Amino acid sequence: MDMNNLEVGPAHQFRIDSGRLQHNLMALSQFGKSQSGGINRSLGSQADLASRQWITHYWQQMGLQVEADPIANIWGLDPNNTSTLKPIVIGSHNDSVPEGGMFDGALGVLMATEVMQTILEAKVDLKHPLKVISLTGEEPNPYQISTLGSKVLTGIVTKNDLMKLHHLETGEPLSKAINRLGGNFDKIDQINYFNNSLAAFIECHIEQGARLDIKKEPAAAVDRITGIYRELVTIKGEANHAGTTMMSCRKDALIATSEIDLALKGILSKYTDDSVVGTLGFLEVKPNAANIIPGETIFNLDIRSGDFDQVQDVVKQLDAVFKTLESQGFQISREVILNQKPKNMDAEIIAVIKSTLKAESGTNAVLTSMAGHDAANMGRIGRTGMIFVRSIGGKSHCSDEFSRIEDIEVACNVYLQTILELDKELN
Amino acid sequence: MDMNNLEVGPAHQFRIDSGRLQHNLMALSQFGKSQSGGINRSLGSQADLASRQWITHYWQQMGLQVEADPIANIWGLDPNNTSTLKPIVIGSHNDSVPEGGMFDGALGVLMATEVMQTILEAKVDLKHPLKVISLTGEEPNPYQISTLGSKVLTGIVTKNDLMKLHHLETGEPLSKAINRLGGNFDKIDQINYFNNSLAAFIECHIEQGARLDIKKEPAAAVDRITGIYRELVTIKGEANHAGTTMMSCRKDALIATSEIDLALKGILSKYTDDSVVGTLGFLEVKPNAANIIPGETIFNLDIRSGDFDQVQDVVKQLDAVFKTLESQGFQISREVILNQKPKNMDAEIIAVIKSTLKAESGTNAVLTSMAGHDAANMGRIGRTGMIFVRSIGGKSHCSDEFSRIEDIEVACNVYLQTILELDKELN
Repeated sequence: MDMNNLEVGPAHQFRIDSGRLQHNLMALSQFGKSQSGGINRSLGSQADLASRQWITHYWQQMGLQVEADPIANIWGLDPNNTSTLKPIVIGSHNDSVPEGGMFDGALGVLMATEVMQTILEAKVDLKHPLKVISLTGEEPNPYQISTLGSKVLTGIVTKNDLMKLHHLETGEPLSKAINRLGGNFDKIDQINYFNNSLAAFIECHIEQGARLDIKKEPAAAVDRITGIYRELVTIKGEANHAGTTMMSCRKDALIATSEIDLALKGILSKYTDDSVVGTLGFLEVKPNAANIIPGETIFNLDIRSGDFDQVQDVVKQLDAVFKTLESQGFQISREVILNQKPKNMDAEIIAVIKSTLKAESGTNAVLTSMAGHDAANMGRIGRTGMIFVRSIGGKSHCSDEFSRIEDIEVACNVYLQTILELDKELN
Repeated sequence: MDMNNLEVGPAHQFRIDSGRLQHNLMALSQFGKSQSGGINRSLGSQADLASRQWITHYWQQMGLQVEADPIANIWGLDPNNTSTLKPIVIGSHNDSVPEGGMFDGALGVLMATEVMQTILEAKVDLKHPLKVISLTGEEPNPYQISTLGSKVLTGIVTKNDLMKLHHLETGEPLSKAINRLGGNFDKIDQINYFNNSLAAFIECHIEQGARLDIKKEPAAAVDRITGIYRELVTIKGEANHAGTTMMSCRKDALIATSEIDLALKGILSKYTDDSVVGTLGFLEVKPNAANIIPGETIFNLDIRSGDFDQVQDVVKQLDAVFKTLESQGFQISREVILNQKPKNMDAEIIAVIKSTLKAESGTNAVLTSMAGHDAANMGRIGRTGMIFVRSIGGKSHCSDEFSRIEDIEVACNVYLQTILELDKELN
C-alpha cells in the first residue's frame, strides 16, 4: 500500500469531469466528419493527421510531455512522475473506419485523457508512471494492416514486413504515410517494448454490440477478445457479353460469390448461441459493367468466435462450397490474411474492473469482445484489461454509433478507480 | 436497274482487300490497349479521342469529306457523289467497354471503311450517296448513356435530356466531353434526321455469341435485335460492425443482393430455349470494408429476350423476391433505366443479305442479335439491316474476343455486295 495515496484519501473520492469529456468528444469528432455525419479518419488521411495534432496539443496543454514513437503512436506522460517502475498505459486509437462513428477508438483516447487529467489535477502521487497513448491505425485501412501501432509495439510485425505495404489506391508506401504522421519509419525496429515491459495496459472502448443495451447496463469488464479469421478470396470466372452469352455457357464470378455469401450465412445459422459470426464485407467486381458478365471478384471473408474451434469448423464447411465451385470451372485463390486466436484478459485486472464497476453502478457484466482491439496485441508486453461502454442499439462502424454520456461517465469513473487500484496492487 | 452499274459489270466481281482490312484492324486496336491486352476506349477517354483522330485521318486520305456532327458522330462521304437521293449509311462505333475486345464496334467501322474504299477504287458510280459513320458512345459508359450517337441522330434523346448527364467519377458534364471529341453540344437539337431520312443503314458487327461458331459458319443475316430491360437497384440495409453484431440482428444489403442474383439465375434456368438471359454485372457495395456489414448496395439488372413478353415475365417473378426482402426490412428502390423492345430488321434488306451470303459462302444463317446495337435506333430513320461475323468461342466484351480473318473477309464481301445490290434496288 502506497503511503502517498493514503495521504490524499481513498481512491473513490475522485471523480472525472463528464462535461469536459463530452466537450472533448465533440471537438475530436469534427476531424473527418462527412456531410452525412459519418467519421472518415482512416490511417494516413488528412483527418487522421489533424486529429493527432489536436490530441498532441491538448495533452501538451495538460502539462504532459508528448512524443510520437517510430510507428507514430502518440505518447503522453507526466514529466514530474520520476518513478522507475514499469508504466501503466491507458488509451485507444484515433483512426476510424470509412463513414464510422465518433465513439469507436476516440472515446477510449479521450477517457484515458480524462483519467490522466483528473489524476494530475488531484495531484495523486502514483507509484507507477502513467502514460496515455493514441495508437496508430487500429482499423482496417487502405494500407491493409489493422492494429498497426500495437503490432509494431509488441513485435508482431517488423520493419521488413511493413516495407511491402502500399496504399491500395494511391500506391503511397506505408513508410511515407507513417513519416507524414510524425513517425520515424526507419527506426521501427528500435522500439524496445518486449515481454513484461508494461505494468498494465487498460483500454476503454464502446461495446459495439447490443448485449449491454439489451441488459440496460452502463459498462462491462471484458474477459476475452474474440478470435478473428480473415481471408482475401479471388474468384476467376469468365467475363463475357451479358446479352449474347447463353445462360448455360456462363462462368459468372459474382454468381459464385453470391453462393459463398449465402452459404456462409446458412452455415452460421446452425449455431444457436450467437457467439460465432461471419461477414462478406468487402467486394470488388471486375470489370463491373451492366452489360458484362462478372469475370472476377475479390472479397474478404471475416469469421469470429470467442471459441476458435468454431471458426475452424465454419471454415471447413466453407471449404466444401469452394470445392464445388472449383469443380464448376472457377479458379479460386484464398489467402488467410488474419488468423488471430481469442485472447484472454488478465484475471486480476478483470477482478479489479468488476469490483470497481460494482461499486460505481451496482452492475457486474462481463463480456467477450467480438471486435478485435489493440488490447489483444498488448497482452504480449504486459497484463491487459478492457472496459466496455454500452452502445445504444448495438450500432457501430456507422454514423448511427452512439453511447450516452451517463454510461460514459460511469465507465470513465470505473476506469479511473481501476487505474488507482492497480497502481496500488501491481508491482 | 441502274445503267452505270451495268457498265462496270455485275456487282459480284468486286472484292474487298482483306489484308488491308486486317492491317487497319491492328492499327485501330492500339488505341486504349491495356497491358493485359484488353481495349479501354470508353466514351470521352483519351483513347476514344485518339481512335477518332485515326479514323478521321484515314478517311481523309481515302479522299472522303469528313465531318463530326453535333453529337460527335464522324461522317465520311465521297465529295464526287452528287446524287440527291437519300443516302445509304454504313458503319458502327469506335468506343469499347472496359477491358473489351478489339472487334466489337471497331470491326464494323473498318469493314464499312473497306467497303467504301473498294467502291471508290473500283470507281463504282452509285445511285445513292454512300456515307460511312463512326457512331459516338455505343457502349455503356461513365456518362450513363449507351448508343448515344444513334439516340441523338434519331431523336430518341434531346439536348435537354443530355444536359443532366455527368461522368460518374470525374463529374465532367457530358456536354463538355462531346465538345472535346469534336462535337458541338449546343447544336444537338438541330440534327435533322427524321423518319425516312436514310435509304438504308447497314451495320456489320461480330455476333458476340457462340451460335455461328457452333455451326462453324462465317456470317449471318440478323432478323431482329433483342429487347433490353435494365434496372438500377439500390438496397439499403444497415451498416454495422462485422464482429459485434449478432447474425440475428443483421440487415446485410449484400446478402439481400446475393439472394437477388441467385434468384435471377434460378428464374432464367426455367426457360429451356436459351433465348432469355439476365445478368447482375455492375455492383457497388457500401461502405465496402472487411469488418463492416454492407449497409447499401447499388447494382444493375440486365434482362434480354427477342420476345419481350419473356422479359416482363422474368421481372414479375423478381418482383416477388424484392417484396420478400422489403418485408425483411430492406429499403429498396428500383429505377428502370432501359426498356427497349425487340426491333425487327427490314425484311427486304434481310433477303438481300441472305442471298449475297448464300452466294459468297453457301451458308444462310439468320440470327436474332442478343446484344443491343445502334441499328436498333437507326430503324427510326430508315430501313435497317445487320450482318454478323462469327465470334470464336462466342467471347466478347473481354480481351479474348476474336474473329478469324477468313470469316471477316466473307462477311465484308457480303457487306459490299449487299450495298451494291441495295443501291440498285432501293429508291
